[in-house]
Amino acid sequence: MAKKRVFSGIQPSGTLHIGNYFGALKQWVSMVDDFDCIYCIVDYHALTTVKDPAQLRNNTIEGAKDLIAVGIDPSKTVLFNQSAVLEHTELAWVFECLVSVPFLMQAHAYKDKIAKGLEANAGLFNYPMLMAADILLYDTDFVPVGADQRQHVEYAREAASKFNHMYGDTFKEPHEKILDAVAVVPGTDGQKMSKSYGNTIPLFGSTDEIARSVMSIVTDSSGTTPSNVLAIHRLLKPEEELASLYEKNMGNYKALKEALIDDLDAVISPMRAKRNALSDDDVKAVLTEGAEKAASIASAKMRDVRKKIGVGT
Amino acid sequence: MAKKRVFSGIQPSGTLHIGNYFGALKQWVSMVDDFDCIYCIVDYHALTTVKDPAQLRNNTIEGAKDLIAVGIDPSKTVLFNQSAVLEHTELAWVFECLVSVPFLMQAHAYKDKIAKGLEANAGLFNYPMLMAADILLYDTDFVPVGADQRQHVEYAREAASKFNHMYGDTFKEPHEKILDAVAVVPGTDGQKMSKSYGNTIPLFGSTDEIARSVMSIVTDSSGTTPSNVLAIHRLLKPEEELASLYEKNMGNYKALKEALIDDLDAVISPMRAKRNALSDDDVKAVLTEGAEKAASIASAKMRDVRKKIGVGT
Repeated sequence: MAKKRVFSGIQPSGTLHIGNYFGALKQWVSMVDDFDCIYCIVDYHALTTVKDPAQLRNNTIEGAKDLIAVGIDPSKTVLFNQSAVLEHTELAWVFECLVSVPFLMQAHAYKDKIAKGLEANAGLFNYPMLMAADILLYDTDFVPVGADQRQHVEYAREAASKFNHMYGDTFKEPHEKILDAVAVVPGTDGQKMSKSYGNTIPLFGSTDEIARSVMSIVTDSSGTTPSNVLAIHRLLKPEEELASLYEKNMGNYKALKEALIDDLDAVISPMRAKRNALSDDDVKAVLTEGAEKAASIASAKMRDVRKKIGVGT
Repeated sequence: MAKKRVFSGIQPSGTLHIGNYFGALKQWVSMVDDFDCIYCIVDYHALTTVKDPAQLRNNTIEGAKDLIAVGIDPSKTVLFNQSAVLEHTELAWVFECLVSVPFLMQAHAYKDKIAKGLEANAGLFNYPMLMAADILLYDTDFVPVGADQRQHVEYAREAASKFNHMYGDTFKEPHEKILDAVAVVPGTDGQKMSKSYGNTIPLFGSTDEIARSVMSIVTDSSGTTPSNVLAIHRLLKPEEELASLYEKNMGNYKALKEALIDDLDAVISPMRAKRNALSDDDVKAVLTEGAEKAASIASAKMRDVRKKIGVGT
């Protein structure tokens, strides 16, 4: 039986931390063997907010390095950037002609912007239709998203359904694949790990950087188990091993932190080495090859779409 | 000195009448020698309203036949359909990321729709940015429009100016070229000639059809000059010739109508013959060749745009 297809649109936004890895990246990696995966760095989505060209271009290159370094094998997947396949913005236009303005105004990202009294650009307003195009061009079965991103997939499903209803069966209706709840990775202060809280452990950090982050984990000296250390440790080791480790070192927070440093470094060091070995040119070659594969699927789909809607001759 | 460039986006909507010819088409034809003209059949704009694929495709083919038949020489111009050059919808997205939602809500077409209590689709809402892309991709100097369509060109100018301000000089700011006021061609009942009034003379009509239309021109039997006949006749003959013709046949409405039939047929019959000689395949070949020329200009422009905004690698 053919593998089901997974499509994920990724908007890289800078240095990753282990929360990103355990919350999402690791799950994407785990899907590579079981699904036919397409990973797309969505630079045209990023354009709605990133106005610095050097930063946007850098995010694409570094984002691709991150994905390859954590284990997304370009030879087993399609990895490309959105702006390299023109059919994405083309199909977004087709969907825009199908949906109403009030329908798009219900999107969370747009509503949140307006609720904050900010002025939304039209790209942000049309965002759900570009995302629908991303997903639907590739006959996607599943879109891995966090629980708070279900709406993106609903919009894509709605666009597919409207099109199919009006022009005949063309697009597969995709489903969300909600990422496991491990998504909430605790930071060094016990809150959710997040760049904005300054409580992160860098994903590609050096051993020294990892050590500094772990040593800064907030512990409660009144107890015998450093709960914030244990919470992160749970991401790396099975419960039985942890139980014997934490019993043996009861009250010895330093030893437990050192164990966590070792365990983190064991996971991180091969990814760090892989990332350091990747040149910009390596990544550009991967993205170019990925774009060719993506374009061959997308252009076939758009030939069918154009015929059905009646544009062209 | 290089010729100035004219870009015109044309949305064909069915059978033409002589009002279309004298109001717009004839002026487009007259620009072919003086300007570097690009005529684009905007099928992706039409998609905002035309939901019948066969009708949309037919409008493109028949619209191209109309243009060639009235004298737009494909060997001297670029004649193509919008959906064949993917850079149009791509650049529209780039502009959408630059402009605000309230800015687009000020567009006449959108406001009119809302004022009538109708629900606008998002394509109609984004229409001005696709039109801006059409115009700006080709370093257009002039856009021929009716006096009521100035706003389209203003939107394009604004998009160019915003982009140039943010990313550096890239787009030429276009200007409107308001079509001559002859645009108001009187119909057979003396009102403006319009399909919706049922008072038209078909542009590619047979001699019999022309005769029937002219014979139906409403005349006032109390006078000596059939003013509605004269008004149409003015499109075809200089005043001196008309003066002597109408004096010689004073009160003889039948003779004057017959003279008008002859004069109309003299203009129409070569266009009609040319149109009848055009096969669908001829037109498809013209559009394909036009699209190749347009794409070579548009793709070079978009390479520059992508580099400046920072998408791609």
